[in-house]
Amino acid sequence: MTSSNGFHIRPAKPDDTPLILRFVQGLADFEGLDHTVAATEDSLRESLFGQNPAAEVALGFAGDHPAGFAVFYHNYSTFLGRRGMYLEDIFVLPEYRRNGLGKMLLTHVAGIALERGCGRFEWAVLDWNQNAARFYHQLGAVALNDWHIFRMDVEALRNLIDNDTAQR
Amino acid sequence: MTSSNGFHIRPAKPDDTPLILRFVQGLADFEGLDHTVAATEDSLRESLFGQNPAAEVALGFAGDHPAGFAVFYHNYSTFLGRRGMYLEDIFVLPEYRRNGLGKMLLTHVAGIALERGCGRFEWAVLDWNQNAARFYHQLGAVALNDWHIFRMDVEALRNLIDNDTAQR
Repeated sequence: MTSSNGFHIRPAKPDDTPLILRFVQGLADFEGLDHTVAATEDSLRESLFGQNPAAEVALGFAGDHPAGFAVFYHNYSTFLGRRGMYLEDIFVLPEYRRNGLGKMLLTHVAGIALERGCGRFEWAVLDWNQNAARFYHQLGAVALNDWHIFRMDVEALRNLIDNDTAQR
Repeated sequence: MTSSNGFHIRPAKPDDTPLILRFVQGLADFEGLDHTVAATEDSLRESLFGQNPAAEVALGFAGDHPAGFAVFYHNYSTFLGRRGMYLEDIFVLPEYRRNGLGKMLLTHVAGIALERGCGRFEWAVLDWNQNAARFYHQLGAVALNDWHIFRMDVEALRNLIDNDTAQR
């Protein structure tokens, strides 16, 4: 457990799933992406606390009140030949912002990354979110503006496989 | 094993580590990032084939000749509440390009992603690599141009933790 400024951070447990979904929805809402949230309590419980957890969650509290969260998992770099750490989500409820909890959550995950020998720590930021970009720059992060993320959703994956099969 | 156009693809084994390092260096060279390669045969063997493998590698061959590779691992989306697939590297040796191996490798990993129930498939592309961007668009991928990747290297991580400790 990490404590500072009246906040404390602890790892999430299965019983925290409803709270995690609430934070995911809060973050999606803030990012204007709430229409893309397909997660349910069941899918989060299974993927985060099932047999083969896909990510870890740290929860931030102000006293007894849930105030924010961070979700992270290991990525990998062949160039480094080492695991890295990827921050999937970081979110602080509006009423607790500008009091250091965001920095605490980021520093908490950074500490885990160092402990585990990760070669780097990465995350993605929406281009309009200049507050976040400034905050991350102040903490020593650099933006990799020469890289673009490409994505296929399940429909694109199925099309690719179907076309490939049809061509054989 | 996948076969087509005289190429075949199989999963890499520990004995393939020198070949994997050669492909990593080939890709880094192509990307103008060869000065960033810190990986060694030992670090790749340990991280890819040790107790807790950080990624998987598919190798492409033209007959007996190594021709290309793909490196991939699972990422995670809280918005989907599901694992995804992330393509860390894809590379085809110059003498085997424009013959379908790149598409075969990408389709191979896409098939694994679908089989495992992944909610999406993602990778990062350098902004000057318009050939690659065109190729991925043709296969049904979309570029997420509104996201920027932020990164901290180990030095930035140490600074963050040291400053944090000093302020307590």
